[in-house]
Amino acid sequence: MFSCALFAQSGLTDYVNPIIGTNGMGHTFPGACAPFGIVQLSPDTDTIPQNVNGAYQKKVYEYCAGYQHRDKTIVGFSHTHLSGTGHSDLGDVLIMPTVGKLMLNPGTSDHPENGYRSNYSHDTEKCTPGYYEVVLDDYDIKAQLTATERVGVHKYTFNKGKDAHIILDLIHGIYNYDGKTLWSTIRVENDTLITGYRITNGWARTNYTYFAISLSKPIKNYGYVDKERVLYSGFLRKFDLNHNFPEIAGRKVVAYFDFDMADKESLELKVALSAVSTDGALKNLKAETAGLDFDQLAERTKAKWEEDLDLIEAEGNNDQLAMLYTSLYHTMINPSIYMDVDGQYRGLDHNIHQADGFTNYTIFSLWDTYRALHPLFNVLHPQRNADMVESMLKHYEQSVHKALPVWSLMGNENWCMIGYHAVPVLADTYVKGGNVDASKAIEAMVSSSTLPYYEGVKDYMQYGYVPFDRNGSAVSVTLEYAYDDWTIYQMAQKAGNKKVADEYAKRALNYRNVFDRDLGWARPKYKNGEWKKNFSLLNTHGEGFIEGNSWNYSFYVPHDVNGLITAMGGDKKFISNLDSLFVMELPAKYYENTEDVTKEGLIGNYVHGNEPSHHIAYLYAWSSQPWKTQYWVREIMNRMYKNNIDGLCGNDDCGQMSAWYIFTAMGFYPVCPGSDEYVLGAPYLPYMKVKLGNGKIFEIKAPKVSDKNRYVKSVKLNGKNYDKMYLSHEDLMNGGEIVFEMSSKPNKKRGISSETKPYSMTDGKF
Amino acid sequence: MFSCALFAQSGLTDYVNPIIGTNGMGHTFPGACAPFGIVQLSPDTDTIPQNVNGAYQKKVYEYCAGYQHRDKTIVGFSHTHLSGTGHSDLGDVLIMPTVGKLMLNPGTSDHPENGYRSNYSHDTEKCTPGYYEVVLDDYDIKAQLTATERVGVHKYTFNKGKDAHIILDLIHGIYNYDGKTLWSTIRVENDTLITGYRITNGWARTNYTYFAISLSKPIKNYGYVDKERVLYSGFLRKFDLNHNFPEIAGRKVVAYFDFDMADKESLELKVALSAVSTDGALKNLKAETAGLDFDQLAERTKAKWEEDLDLIEAEGNNDQLAMLYTSLYHTMINPSIYMDVDGQYRGLDHNIHQADGFTNYTIFSLWDTYRALHPLFNVLHPQRNADMVESMLKHYEQSVHKALPVWSLMGNENWCMIGYHAVPVLADTYVKGGNVDASKAIEAMVSSSTLPYYEGVKDYMQYGYVPFDRNGSAVSVTLEYAYDDWTIYQMAQKAGNKKVADEYAKRALNYRNVFDRDLGWARPKYKNGEWKKNFSLLNTHGEGFIEGNSWNYSFYVPHDVNGLITAMGGDKKFISNLDSLFVMELPAKYYENTEDVTKEGLIGNYVHGNEPSHHIAYLYAWSSQPWKTQYWVREIMNRMYKNNIDGLCGNDDCGQMSAWYIFTAMGFYPVCPGSDEYVLGAPYLPYMKVKLGNGKIFEIKAPKVSDKNRYVKSVKLNGKNYDKMYLSHEDLMNGGEIVFEMSSKPNKKRGISSETKPYSMTDGKF
Repeated sequence: MFSCALFAQSGLTDYVNPIIGTNGMGHTFPGACAPFGIVQLSPDTDTIPQNVNGAYQKKVYEYCAGYQHRDKTIVGFSHTHLSGTGHSDLGDVLIMPTVGKLMLNPGTSDHPENGYRSNYSHDTEKCTPGYYEVVLDDYDIKAQLTATERVGVHKYTFNKGKDAHIILDLIHGIYNYDGKTLWSTIRVENDTLITGYRITNGWARTNYTYFAISLSKPIKNYGYVDKERVLYSGFLRKFDLNHNFPEIAGRKVVAYFDFDMADKESLELKVALSAVSTDGALKNLKAETAGLDFDQLAERTKAKWEEDLDLIEAEGNNDQLAMLYTSLYHTMINPSIYMDVDGQYRGLDHNIHQADGFTNYTIFSLWDTYRALHPLFNVLHPQRNADMVESMLKHYEQSVHKALPVWSLMGNENWCMIGYHAVPVLADTYVKGGNVDASKAIEAMVSSSTLPYYEGVKDYMQYGYVPFDRNGSAVSVTLEYAYDDWTIYQMAQKAGNKKVADEYAKRALNYRNVFDRDLGWARPKYKNGEWKKNFSLLNTHGEGFIEGNSWNYSFYVPHDVNGLITAMGGDKKFISNLDSLFVMELPAKYYENTEDVTKEGLIGNYVHGNEPSHHIAYLYAWSSQPWKTQYWVREIMNRMYKNNIDGLCGNDDCGQMSAWYIFTAMGFYPVCPGSDEYVLGAPYLPYMKVKLGNGKIFEIKAPKVSDKNRYVKSVKLNGKNYDKMYLSHEDLMNGGEIVFEMSSKPNKKRGISSETKPYSMTDGKF
Repeated sequence: MFSCALFAQSGLTDYVNPIIGTNGMGHTFPGACAPFGIVQLSPDTDTIPQNVNGAYQKKVYEYCAGYQHRDKTIVGFSHTHLSGTGHSDLGDVLIMPTVGKLMLNPGTSDHPENGYRSNYSHDTEKCTPGYYEVVLDDYDIKAQLTATERVGVHKYTFNKGKDAHIILDLIHGIYNYDGKTLWSTIRVENDTLITGYRITNGWARTNYTYFAISLSKPIKNYGYVDKERVLYSGFLRKFDLNHNFPEIAGRKVVAYFDFDMADKESLELKVALSAVSTDGALKNLKAETAGLDFDQLAERTKAKWEEDLDLIEAEGNNDQLAMLYTSLYHTMINPSIYMDVDGQYRGLDHNIHQADGFTNYTIFSLWDTYRALHPLFNVLHPQRNADMVESMLKHYEQSVHKALPVWSLMGNENWCMIGYHAVPVLADTYVKGGNVDASKAIEAMVSSSTLPYYEGVKDYMQYGYVPFDRNGSAVSVTLEYAYDDWTIYQMAQKAGNKKVADEYAKRALNYRNVFDRDLGWARPKYKNGEWKKNFSLLNTHGEGFIEGNSWNYSFYVPHDVNGLITAMGGDKKFISNLDSLFVMELPAKYYENTEDVTKEGLIGNYVHGNEPSHHIAYLYAWSSQPWKTQYWVREIMNRMYKNNIDGLCGNDDCGQMSAWYIFTAMGFYPVCPGSDEYVLGAPYLPYMKVKLGNGKIFEIKAPKVSDKNRYVKSVKLNGKNYDKMYLSHEDLMNGGEIVFEMSSKPNKKRGISSETKPYSMTDGKF
């Protein structure tokens, strides 16, 4: 069921249901954006309480995308939103149309009548890629939103036009706190043009948002309140600063603009953003919207989405297609273009740089997205991915740390999560033939993996693992460093840099140092070499792991699964560990206090909402019972992805959850980015056609597939029997077809012999 | 007597005594700068109390230049200082060297031992143009400072080198208040290079100061405190941010850098500034200081001052020459170059612009400097003045108000004082043959003088005066608008724009609308045309004037002195009004509560420390007793300018007081900028030689001049008898010599006939 009516009844955008994941944990937003655009113009249904250090902290994470479907009021429409993150920020440049009594505070959800926010009903909401519509009940205003890459476009129809106002709230933000806006300015350039900017200190430590707003009708009067008036230089006092004085500045500014509107008349606003300057915003405004009205711009953006969604053609029922195309949609929001139309962008050093020969991107949630999102880009959007790699290299060059991004947000490094996972993105792109300057990339990868003050790296280099007495997430960190190091080894080897390859081949085996061979699980180890006592396989907190307990995290050796099998005690034990993961009954005490895990997000002890598990269902491929992958991936698809507001079992994480869905639907998954292999699971739909980034076509056929016929009996690649348990990137990108013969019973003989097995760094002997 | 020993005993810089005016009201600073440089590296002897709205407000103005000679401690050395202003700001990027226990607060003047500040003795101070030296007694550190245009250069000799620190305080500022620093960042790029910036909200509403600091020795350890820790994005917590973490940010940051210093070893710092970016600061650093050490840079800057001081050659006693050359020095500090070496600068719109074909300047204290400083530049530095005019036109173009600067400060308009006095600067420069785009200039002048919401302009255009019920300074404002309007008339006429000329010729006579002909004085008038009752000629506050009572301000009709004479009641009354001004005894109640007037700054009721009076002594020229000018200008020179710490009777106001001194010493003064005439007084010295901006030489000879022989008997211009009471700009710039025959008795016949009189817009009939 679509919970939100569609804008137009034609094309692939019709399948997309942006409302999926907008309630609870998905942290997606329903608003309008263009593919990979920096503007995500969307309703915010609550502002964040001011006290972030105490009781309200939890609520902060509820509003990562500014919207919770259960809310009854809309505060306004802001221009920047993260898609599916687990931490929150942005919500820049809030616009709200009102009529009647002028109110310059947002009010509260309990008492919306005390502020400018409005009640609304989901019945009036319409959302489709690039378009959002709602009626603001308190003011009887129909709000329509669309966006280009850099411009948010608003159309407000005032059913009652008397005393019409536009509120521009520069205090408002997601992850707000008292003082988040460091400074803001507004210039009323003329009666249809406003410019300004604000600088905020949030998850992005220093975030510059410049804007230029053009209006379809002249402003009648305007003014502002400054809720924390700072010092005025004496002679400003001679002006009536609060009314029709065209230069506004302050730390807590809410401005208003009055318009003469007739009943039923519409007002259109174009709000261009730039991280560079108001000049940049004006350039963006002109380049992307000059001469075009709301309807034309909405149509253009819809056409862009149609083109990008057309990369995949598929057969399936409505819910399956909604989930597939919504997933595809969600993979094309973040990372986002972070550059003006003229190529100027704000670098990590806060200086303005000129992008020569590439498009600069930001919002790299790399701990999440190196797994499947960037690999998906290497299939569907190789040029964009190459530009993202270049953006990461610029980040490295501009950083004082001389490190690739960990989590890049609006020209800032926020260091979120663990590992140095730009490294596998570079390696994967290079290995898959992407345009990467290998020697520069290796320099950056080596520098990033040897930064002594970064999360245990010095200890890791000294001890071969991160000691638990030095870091609370020591085991997770060690496991991920070892994989990242393998990708450096892999890339250095391909690039002919033997010295680096040899060194990192050794580091890649460091996962062994946190495996307790007696126990058969990864376990925290102290500096003195002793294991943590009273160790729980099921607890996450306090056990050396982050976003996953040992039972989940121990499977994190994607580059040497043979070694992992040995470490766990051999094939049988490995299979039983996997089986138990999916079928055990996990007592609530192990997850109920974990912010990002819910009962619905669990399959046994398997947590699909947290990324460290994303490859696990595919690990059966290395075992003697590979068919079990075919069972569990379909279970996950069916149980963890639903075409409704609660349809995502965890944060979409900038498209990683969605990218997992798309790969798994195709029947294969990049278990170990940096290798050129996709491990076979089983296709989810009877037919998929993929327009590859190189212009070729790859078709996936499984005519008989169903929940019952979920097992793969045999496979043909381009008409020839195909017995391997993986597909190479080359085979995929050459185009052609893969045909799966499906069955209700597993073919237990397929994929058993060692020649059919996917890549593993070692044969498992140690 | 020189209160401060000299750096080197040779050249014209020896005459300059930068300590003049550093106590009390002069508001000059003793530190180092290059001519017209944006860096003024100087000791700050106190920080401003946090409470600016209450009791400490007065103290704010004491520290306009950061230094009061009477103070016993130095807080540190900051890089930007206004020269002689009456309002305060800047003091950016404070550096302080210390040894021993690390202290990161400045301490108080009462208890310097509780902070990083140090006691010092004036005995150890040496200052000369471009160089400052002092011993920091508490740490036994010899501090030496010099500067290029954009780089402050420090040399610290640690007599005891153990536990040596450099403190970098980004909270410190002049005109400080809690929250002035909106945001600051520091990057430790490597162990000898630091970059960063801060954004402040002060008198300059939004002031961006980027810096790059290079060090002659590597940093051993570093860290910082943030005295108002704001939100950290969660994952920054994994670092030890306070120690050796190279990216520092916050609102109240004080950083420290530790060095391994041997006893007697020196540490050199080069601190480059930019308003554009840290990249810009690095470019400035490289262009101006690469490969040069402290001593070489100090030598270079000294040579620049020698060259610029060499514009004037003079004979006189030591005190007279000290005063003359110090005045000349003080005319070459502000305005200051506001542009990186590559021509990039931050405009009034906060965007980055490229200066094509001109040098961009800031710090235009125009209410002061249009009178004599810019006219002096038209004689000595025509190219600089043309660039300043271009900077003002850019300010106009970039302003949302479409107005020329009132008071331009670091890319901001602070609207200080009254009038639109960029207008006379443009007119004066144009009339005197400067390179000004007349049509653009007239457009800007008209726009600036018709800005409806600017200080009574709408009323002024409607009523012909600013009504007192609408503006507390209504009479001052009206008088100054009328003069400014005359300069627009003058310029439009020369440029052949009859329409504008006609309109502004009318406006130029608006001074008449605030003259009470019955009373013979300017007087506040209400909207309804009634005069203010209970009017005092001697009070300033509450009487419709600012920085001057009616007795002083009524003389402010420089463009139509004949009309003024009529308005006052004729020649006799005019003379008696002037005489009384200088000789009356002003009761203390009329000035003791006025922040910028002291008893020592008065000659009768004449206040030389406030600019509205600067032309008054020359007004006798239009009367039947022109010789009285000769008497009073020498009185003013002798009594209001002294070669000591208290040597300026009022704020030097960015060189206006000093420019008055120089013109008056030469024997003439630009009473009415925008005309091409200088009104003759009497030369102060027996000989002066002026290198004109066009390369020619003008000599002023008055061999017999003395306090006794202060009267002009006769004048010869280039050997010919010269009977006029003015000198034309053309005659001056043609070069040559003017010879004054001086006498102890006035020549009461000279300058009486109407043909000898200076310009007046009318014949005085109305």
